[in-house]
Amino acid sequence: MGTREKIAVVLASGGVDSAVAAACARKDCGRIAMLHVNYGQRTGKRELEAFNALAGALGAERTFVAEAAYLGRMGASSLTDPNLPVPDARPAPAAGIPSTYVPFRNANLLAIAVSWAEAICSGAVYIGAVQEDGSGYPDCRESFLRAFERAAQEGTRPETSIKIMAPLLHEKKGEIVKLGARLGVPFELTWSCYRDEIVACGRCESCVLRLKSFAAAGIKDPIPYAGQTAKNGLAHGA
Amino acid sequence: MGTREKIAVVLASGGVDSAVAAACARKDCGRIAMLHVNYGQRTGKRELEAFNALAGALGAERTFVAEAAYLGRMGASSLTDPNLPVPDARPAPAAGIPSTYVPFRNANLLAIAVSWAEAICSGAVYIGAVQEDGSGYPDCRESFLRAFERAAQEGTRPETSIKIMAPLLHEKKGEIVKLGARLGVPFELTWSCYRDEIVACGRCESCVLRLKSFAAAGIKDPIPYAGQTAKNGLAHGA
Repeated sequence: MGTREKIAVVLASGGVDSAVAAACARKDCGRIAMLHVNYGQRTGKRELEAFNALAGALGAERTFVAEAAYLGRMGASSLTDPNLPVPDARPAPAAGIPSTYVPFRNANLLAIAVSWAEAICSGAVYIGAVQEDGSGYPDCRESFLRAFERAAQEGTRPETSIKIMAPLLHEKKGEIVKLGARLGVPFELTWSCYRDEIVACGRCESCVLRLKSFAAAGIKDPIPYAGQTAKNGLAHGA
Repeated sequence: MGTREKIAVVLASGGVDSAVAAACARKDCGRIAMLHVNYGQRTGKRELEAFNALAGALGAERTFVAEAAYLGRMGASSLTDPNLPVPDARPAPAAGIPSTYVPFRNANLLAIAVSWAEAICSGAVYIGAVQEDGSGYPDCRESFLRAFERAAQEGTRPETSIKIMAPLLHEKKGEIVKLGARLGVPFELTWSCYRDEIVACGRCESCVLRLKSFAAAGIKDPIPYAGQTAKNGLAHGA
């Protein structure tokens, strides 16, 4: 299939899911190019640090960091708007879309990724989206990803064919951690907390999901949490 | 249909087509919000100036300027890569995709526009894309725009429904100028040249398309061109 098939573009936030997706891409394609988008996340500096460390550890051949601060400036999300508090995780089953939802975020990320993929002759974009067991964002659904892939087919050069790969889409969170462990993902380099940059808060929805995932996998999360004691790996009784 | 229907988001470069699209949006919806994306175009400063002037003249209630310099940094287009020359327009019928094509550009623009539309409760995004009579870019095709609209339906909140409107898609260039004139578009405020920022070059593909459009409409293009004499409005014998 020519050089187009030989390198995969991976969207990577610096968190667990995208790190595992990057390991899947490396297993599938051999060569990876990692892309990070900074859109004004509160913990953006820490995420970028995690991204760079992961790119090094996973052997990414190329990296690209895109500044897309406009997404944060549009507001309407507690993930980027400093005037909205990041809530603690909601009691399950949570209804509706969380306040951390950034409008149509993944379409922006995928558009950047497909542009880069077309520019560097890549045939696949990997994203660590998780549907059923994830955060409930509408742009993490398979129907969205398939529609976007169709748009990428229609909107790029005739000789370009880029697949949108979401290897974790229907996985349970615990299975994702187990898969990452099998693929040698250095979880100690990842970052997930939506609220803090030094020690993870352990209480925001991202921390709680992460802690549950490691617990379900029966694997100790190697990063430090606020309020953590030397004896147990769980924060705040989560 | 609630407030969602009442304001339209318009993607506006500062050129003729998007200015006419903005006038169409104002006619259809009454209220418009104009969005400009700076992605490292050579003539970006001049385009932004044109955008701001048009937003004022057309009565946009809100404006938003998004910096998306990453699109330019990806290279692969003579529109943004200072190491590639902007070619003169090619003799018709031109084959293939022009070197000014920015990979998957319109998907990036539309993703930003849909994010903003969702944030401000707009139900429509207008884009001045032109298919048959345009530049031959793959992301100006109806099949792409419909696929992207589907992705926007799938990837936004359940209560969000945003239509992608391309009122000029199947119009001839001359008809677009006539329509703009009927709708009172101030063409003297628009900018199209891909090469220069003070006086339009009259020879790049964008200038040549523009000059042909005004000629076909039988309307004098009010902006100055290099080599233009006081007697005629055509540059370089175009």
